[in-house]
Amino acid sequence: MSTNEVDLDAILAFAINLAQDAGKMIRDGQAKRFASEAASEDAKLNSVDLVTEVDKAVQEFIEKAISEAYPEHKFIGEETYAGEKITDAPTWIIDPIDGTTNFIHGFPMVCTSIGLAHKGVPVVGVIYNPFMDQLYSAAKGRGAYLNQTQKLPLTGKAKPLLSLGHALIGVEYGSNRLSPGLPSKVRTFQTLAADVKEGGKMAHSLRSLGSAAINIAVVASGGLDMYWEIGCWPWDVTAGICILHEAGGAVFGSKTSSLSGDVDADLIAGRKYLLMRGMAPAEGETALQTQQRFAKEFYDTTEDLNP
Amino acid sequence: MSTNEVDLDAILAFAINLAQDAGKMIRDGQAKRFASEAASEDAKLNSVDLVTEVDKAVQEFIEKAISEAYPEHKFIGEETYAGEKITDAPTWIIDPIDGTTNFIHGFPMVCTSIGLAHKGVPVVGVIYNPFMDQLYSAAKGRGAYLNQTQKLPLTGKAKPLLSLGHALIGVEYGSNRLSPGLPSKVRTFQTLAADVKEGGKMAHSLRSLGSAAINIAVVASGGLDMYWEIGCWPWDVTAGICILHEAGGAVFGSKTSSLSGDVDADLIAGRKYLLMRGMAPAEGETALQTQQRFAKEFYDTTEDLNP
Repeated sequence: MSTNEVDLDAILAFAINLAQDAGKMIRDGQAKRFASEAASEDAKLNSVDLVTEVDKAVQEFIEKAISEAYPEHKFIGEETYAGEKITDAPTWIIDPIDGTTNFIHGFPMVCTSIGLAHKGVPVVGVIYNPFMDQLYSAAKGRGAYLNQTQKLPLTGKAKPLLSLGHALIGVEYGSNRLSPGLPSKVRTFQTLAADVKEGGKMAHSLRSLGSAAINIAVVASGGLDMYWEIGCWPWDVTAGICILHEAGGAVFGSKTSSLSGDVDADLIAGRKYLLMRGMAPAEGETALQTQQRFAKEFYDTTEDLNP
Repeated sequence: MSTNEVDLDAILAFAINLAQDAGKMIRDGQAKRFASEAASEDAKLNSVDLVTEVDKAVQEFIEKAISEAYPEHKFIGEETYAGEKITDAPTWIIDPIDGTTNFIHGFPMVCTSIGLAHKGVPVVGVIYNPFMDQLYSAAKGRGAYLNQTQKLPLTGKAKPLLSLGHALIGVEYGSNRLSPGLPSKVRTFQTLAADVKEGGKMAHSLRSLGSAAINIAVVASGGLDMYWEIGCWPWDVTAGICILHEAGGAVFGSKTSSLSGDVDADLIAGRKYLLMRGMAPAEGETALQTQQRFAKEFYDTTEDLNP
């Protein structure tokens, strides 16, 4: 199937509807879970079962809708992942609930992430947070939007970034909390935050929302300058990368990768990401060169971690 | 003036209107700032000026409205703070924009925080995030609500907390990034996150939203189990403490304070806080005893920091 045969406008509209319907399931599932917990003496077990139930039900709903609408497309979903490779074929890559820990706690940074990759490049992305009613969407060449009306970045034009010290940076602790990974991550957090007098970057600050897809969407909107992630999965990033690209942003792989800004199946599946918002180019640079310069400076504060 | 002379229902309604109007000013100010930046070649200076301008305009608006409606009440606001003490008199304690760094960046965790303390205890609190349209409000004895209809905690009934390892914890880097403060904070973050095998608490995770008032509101809603803060100010916490109390939560002072759960002017102004959501009491404990036990265990992971 060639690019021309993929009708991105129709697919985008389909994916937006799908995300909104999935969002309603997530909201309803949460209400049902809270009601069940409130009625139960043993909230704990019940609660975990209900989370898994909602997660599975949402993925089944999305997978069924896609297989009916696009039976020739491939599908990779978190709940049924069995090591499928991302090929050149049109491939839906979806996370029914990104931010599962948040969902468990009732922390409202939870979303459905629905992406379509074609020839290894994300070409449609929809991220919907049903608790905040925030829908981020994009299709290749069509721009990126919040709630289908506000063009990203929300600043209108890409702002400059004067230095890493001026950056608001998304970071996460992740689920692997053993050495050497966790202490290494935390050393980077400290270097980013610390005063310049003590060898730090004195970044404006660090933020942790607990959802990779939402972090990327906020980078695309311009609200975070960058987001560093080690350990998440293709379904956490595919939709987000499309939205970020359409908002002028760039994604890079691991510290030791080329930092070319090129996206392919290996980068999507590489589990190491550094995402930069759209930036007004610094003098004598293209926007990508400015993003690459900040990526290099950022990676100088990190070690080469495994997830 | 005795407690009976303070009409909390009327004051709450007044404060909600005020916060909504202030929120509109903040939203409009942001739109104006982005438009001005997009039109300007030198976005930087312009932008900082406009942030200060919005911050001041919002405080002036709030202060004027309060002085007209309640001329006999005292007033403490971030923008005009000059060391005023919190006395027993009814005292409005307000932050026109909490999350200023977020506001500068367009990160949507920004709020107006409007609190009233009487006899050193917060009796009315309203926290409004105009970018997410989330309004948290409470008055003493009236319960706490999200958007005036959803009672807090959103779970309906206070959930148990099984251990610190089950907790989702709000933390912030703050603005002082020097030794010994920052490294000490970061050591605590690492201890909270690290695997139990390596001496850690293996907390579910850590979150950083960058607004003290919103963090407290989310604790009240049940979305965070606790929030630790060193270095913020009375206007960041007064409204939140009222909302948290009405949702069954508790606030404690510094590591070396009594952890009684009692609130007075010294605690409000103490700049060190540990806030716990409402909890179903563990067996053989009252809810407050359960909260105190977790506060003790939490503070065992910290050093006694100065802001």
